[in-house]
Amino acid sequence: MDRPGAVAALRASVAGFATEHLPGATSWCVALSGGPDSLALAAAAAAALPTTALIVDHGLQPGSGEVAETARRQAHDLGCVDARVLRVQVGTDGGPEAAARTARYAALDVARADAPVLLAHTLDDQAETVLLGLGRGSGARSIAGMRACDPPWYRPLLGVRRGVTHEACAELGLTPWDDPHNHDPRFTRVRLRTEVLPLLEDVLGGGVAEALARTAAALREDTDALDDWAALTLEDTDVGETVAVTALATLPTAVRRRVIRGWLLRGGAANLTDKQIRAVDALVTAWHGQGGVAVGSDLRQQRLFAARRDGRLTMYAQPV
Amino acid sequence: MDRPGAVAALRASVAGFATEHLPGATSWCVALSGGPDSLALAAAAAAALPTTALIVDHGLQPGSGEVAETARRQAHDLGCVDARVLRVQVGTDGGPEAAARTARYAALDVARADAPVLLAHTLDDQAETVLLGLGRGSGARSIAGMRACDPPWYRPLLGVRRGVTHEACAELGLTPWDDPHNHDPRFTRVRLRTEVLPLLEDVLGGGVAEALARTAAALREDTDALDDWAALTLEDTDVGETVAVTALATLPTAVRRRVIRGWLLRGGAANLTDKQIRAVDALVTAWHGQGGVAVGSDLRQQRLFAARRDGRLTMYAQPV
Repeated sequence: MDRPGAVAALRASVAGFATEHLPGATSWCVALSGGPDSLALAAAAAAALPTTALIVDHGLQPGSGEVAETARRQAHDLGCVDARVLRVQVGTDGGPEAAARTARYAALDVARADAPVLLAHTLDDQAETVLLGLGRGSGARSIAGMRACDPPWYRPLLGVRRGVTHEACAELGLTPWDDPHNHDPRFTRVRLRTEVLPLLEDVLGGGVAEALARTAAALREDTDALDDWAALTLEDTDVGETVAVTALATLPTAVRRRVIRGWLLRGGAANLTDKQIRAVDALVTAWHGQGGVAVGSDLRQQRLFAARRDGRLTMYAQPV
Repeated sequence: MDRPGAVAALRASVAGFATEHLPGATSWCVALSGGPDSLALAAAAAAALPTTALIVDHGLQPGSGEVAETARRQAHDLGCVDARVLRVQVGTDGGPEAAARTARYAALDVARADAPVLLAHTLDDQAETVLLGLGRGSGARSIAGMRACDPPWYRPLLGVRRGVTHEACAELGLTPWDDPHNHDPRFTRVRLRTEVLPLLEDVLGGGVAEALARTAAALREDTDALDDWAALTLEDTDVGETVAVTALATLPTAVRRRVIRGWLLRGGAANLTDKQIRAVDALVTAWHGQGGVAVGSDLRQQRLFAARRDGRLTMYAQPV
């Protein structure tokens, strides 16, 4: 069978990704929802290496078992050496979407054994992720998007437009599952896709999805470099339970804030906000004798504070 | 006269900004368009220090002379010690908006003598600038927004919503100039303000302008730290006309790309694209004997290339 166009392009993307990021792999898994992106990825992956399709049935939508079964059959037809349906129990922590994601990744992590897992996020998903992060306003961390390599998770399609996976399914004669959630405007991501991105494309003159994906990649590199710098500083001998203000004062602002963040987290802080980190930073850079800064704690029965004493930052707890 | 609310808030912002960023200033200038942001800034500035209002008349719109004259009178009424209209000749380089900006800043720079110049960009302007940069997709550099301090230019209102300056004008009984360009949908910025930002606020649940401004500030800090790191590396003895691949290979990606960018610019490159920098970077990180990479030149009569020879990156020119 002659396979021009989209399928060939996807195969090339996946093969190139494997050479660069998974040179030693002899087999892999694909997380398969039955939707067009993951079906097309499964097809391209199976052409390159022995592929196991892992299909998570969240049991949240009526007929989810049938959707999973159809995806399983399609995976076999596409040449996957194995295709398994993983039934999961979705909790409630952090809201329905987060709970489904937690359950999904946990099940995939068990089922994959030692193999890497390919995820079918596309360039369009990445662009939507950047826009979602813009609303959080926590700097590069919130808009750096998804990583292409985050072992055991790999995303070979981050440079591929969604249109290509749809075309590939058409070329392969596949009917992908059309998740009704993808059309439900109660989901922020759906409105970003169907309303915000088209308007931005119109106003900014096209190429916005690609520009957002490029920005995500560049910011990811930036924040990785700064995180590494901060981590090296955190390993320093003078950053222990307390930290000398002089060790922080000479660092560039972006690094100093990251060191403070890491130091607070190490001391038991949780759910840190930009505002809290800036307030602790002010103990270093704008010291005028101010009191302790309340920061979130990972223990419910205590309140945590960061304060400056005798030229050092220190943390202390108070029972609630 | 009792001055509650917006005027008081602006005065506090400007006074706080002066203490932090211009502690030694004994006078300053305000760039005044006659619009609500710069009028409100002039009022707050004049309450803090002897203030000269500089009003640029671009001579591009009918009646621009009257607009400037009105602004001059208002500046005097607001307590500015001086108010001068600067008539400029706008060229054509880079399009009408860029040419007007070039002419404006040149005139302000001459007229200010040695005084700092306050610019009235607000948090909303910053948010629009971030969105404009998203369409360029050049990473932090394109979305880090405007600097609060960029001597001789200072922006004390970057943390202030536009609504506050409008309110302040109302409190002061001022009728600001309403620039028709601010309603013309042929300007990208106008559509970002009137269409994209309101939609994003709706979809992401509010607080978007503030989040964009926070992100801009954080990215500015990030990119400043990385630029400094790259600049230090560029001063290194082994980064001269040619540069040892080994000196680059161990740097984090974000720093290595910046060093390469700086090295190319120093060698006469111009209008560098992300793609060109990545191609030169590949000479370091993905070397397989590939040929020279064409990069833009600042001289029209030559084409510039970067290539790898004997373990060093080198640049060479070819006549067109």
